[in-house]
Amino acid sequence: MVDTMKALIVQGDGYATERPDDTVLAAMEPFVQLGDLPVPEPSEGQVRIKVALASVNPSDEMFIQGLYGQPRIKGNAAGFEGVGDVVASGGGPLADGYLGQRVAFVATAGAPGTWSEYSIADAATCIPLIDSVRDEDGAAMIVNPLTALAMFGVVKQDEAKAFIVSAGASQLSKLMIGAAADEGYRPIAIVRRDSQIEPLKALGASHVLNSEADDFEQQLSAVLGAEKPRVFLDAVANQVSAKVFAAMGRHARWVIYGKLDPELPTLLEPGHLIFMMKRIEGFWLVRWMQETPMAERMAAIQTAQMRFASGEWKTDVTAILSLEEAMTRLPAELAKPNGKVFIKP
Amino acid sequence: MVDTMKALIVQGDGYATERPDDTVLAAMEPFVQLGDLPVPEPSEGQVRIKVALASVNPSDEMFIQGLYGQPRIKGNAAGFEGVGDVVASGGGPLADGYLGQRVAFVATAGAPGTWSEYSIADAATCIPLIDSVRDEDGAAMIVNPLTALAMFGVVKQDEAKAFIVSAGASQLSKLMIGAAADEGYRPIAIVRRDSQIEPLKALGASHVLNSEADDFEQQLSAVLGAEKPRVFLDAVANQVSAKVFAAMGRHARWVIYGKLDPELPTLLEPGHLIFMMKRIEGFWLVRWMQETPMAERMAAIQTAQMRFASGEWKTDVTAILSLEEAMTRLPAELAKPNGKVFIKP
Repeated sequence: MVDTMKALIVQGDGYATERPDDTVLAAMEPFVQLGDLPVPEPSEGQVRIKVALASVNPSDEMFIQGLYGQPRIKGNAAGFEGVGDVVASGGGPLADGYLGQRVAFVATAGAPGTWSEYSIADAATCIPLIDSVRDEDGAAMIVNPLTALAMFGVVKQDEAKAFIVSAGASQLSKLMIGAAADEGYRPIAIVRRDSQIEPLKALGASHVLNSEADDFEQQLSAVLGAEKPRVFLDAVANQVSAKVFAAMGRHARWVIYGKLDPELPTLLEPGHLIFMMKRIEGFWLVRWMQETPMAERMAAIQTAQMRFASGEWKTDVTAILSLEEAMTRLPAELAKPNGKVFIKP
Repeated sequence: MVDTMKALIVQGDGYATERPDDTVLAAMEPFVQLGDLPVPEPSEGQVRIKVALASVNPSDEMFIQGLYGQPRIKGNAAGFEGVGDVVASGGGPLADGYLGQRVAFVATAGAPGTWSEYSIADAATCIPLIDSVRDEDGAAMIVNPLTALAMFGVVKQDEAKAFIVSAGASQLSKLMIGAAADEGYRPIAIVRRDSQIEPLKALGASHVLNSEADDFEQQLSAVLGAEKPRVFLDAVANQVSAKVFAAMGRHARWVIYGKLDPELPTLLEPGHLIFMMKRIEGFWLVRWMQETPMAERMAAIQTAQMRFASGEWKTDVTAILSLEEAMTRLPAELAKPNGKVFIKP
């Protein structure tokens, strides 16, 4: 049994006091440092997991900078999500039963996170993995897939079959596009590169629009007129987003779930909120988890696992970095489009 | 019986094709002209009213410019709201019964409006007036009071007793402040002149903040921290509004019901929509009317009439203009603060 472990340790405490000009992670050092922490002991109902692979989600990037909706704890290991083997139980039948099991998990709030050799999770929220699910899929099986299914649920509550996603080539958008197309919905994806258009159409997107194209606004207007989407799931919240929302029709809902671009959006048609019954709101997985019964959440996660096991969903990997490599290379790897970055502690 | 009548006649058709730099009404001529129209004949269930006094509401200003949520009909008389005597019935017991009665009314959509010697209203929506209600109060007894009571209803649905109104010195805000204070709510009013602070406090505002003051943001922050309002009823939708919304706490709702300032607001904290469950929506009386049962609407209007009859509510008059005077003087009179402008056809 080891007494200490390597981890990427959060340097700030609470929230950032100032909004930075750019929320993109430019360097690791100000926010996390490689160091040693005591191996954590699980409490009753918890398990200790030897982390095999940890995700790097946009929420992690925002969190370590103090820009996410949960306060940082200085000196704690970062990382929300990962996959690994259960190596110790704090007691209780479920935790004991998971000993030796490979699980996907989200670290318990306040306990050491997943960018670390060991992490702590509540046994009740661990997902035992079937063998055909790769570590790369298991490590990214909770946050993105649950968000995708939960946000697709927002679309399903509405009347329109068509809906819009920004950051169309993100892993999360790909999950939403695939799941929605399977059920006969018509995803409209906004991207920033022409090379992303055909792959997303192959996944099931009805239309893919490049917001950098000269005729973007005309294309947008034509597609929205034909498809009449009412929900816009937006990870970017910049001026392109504001244009998309202004171009949408009556009862449009702009659902912001991320802020990938630091540019602040200016509302182009405030009168639409009055006369066209449009509205602007947010989506946060943490909130959804609090409001959604456990059974429904677990069902959504099992749906996700089945999609990964069957190969219907697949996590595209940009890079897998050690803790040491993450300190120097993570920002550059994150800047690459289309795939996901992992940390292998 | 006259065959023709004087009216201010709408010149445009449908909606404006371009958003103007400034939505404030600078001149009448491009939008309405003084002219003659046939005296309208009421259909069954309708009455013809000899207009004694017509309101000039912000919705009229927007409507004649093609900026309101209803399309213009070129050649029709403008004006949504007024007071007058019923001089003809199109048949039916209610319409017949109103003959000779002084009523507050909103003109039937598509029929000649109230900026005219005669107008048409559905008898079912006419409000017979008691003698102690002045014409100035009767002519402004439907649109503003109903909007005030309906929007105060939005506040009541929420948990907080404190709420915010912009354009605090408008007739509408004064109605809301008075009604809310009566029921133990705590209105926070935003104004642009120090001279408006004491009168609004006398009406029942818990706090009145001048957005032009050097220390506005500090004052705002202190008041919001102490009062924790969750609803912001906003007639302005400019950058001051965006600042107010950004300064509000969790679950804040920015309810836009007007666009008195053409400045487009930039969202300062999009992340608040995600992590603080804030949202931005609109309120439109026309929509509220469609969704609210007739009995509830009539009860709200009778509540308004009683408040005017008792002197608890009072319409402050800036000017009463003839149709001819309105063509030249209306924009200048509208620019004066604090009171309401009427047209006496």
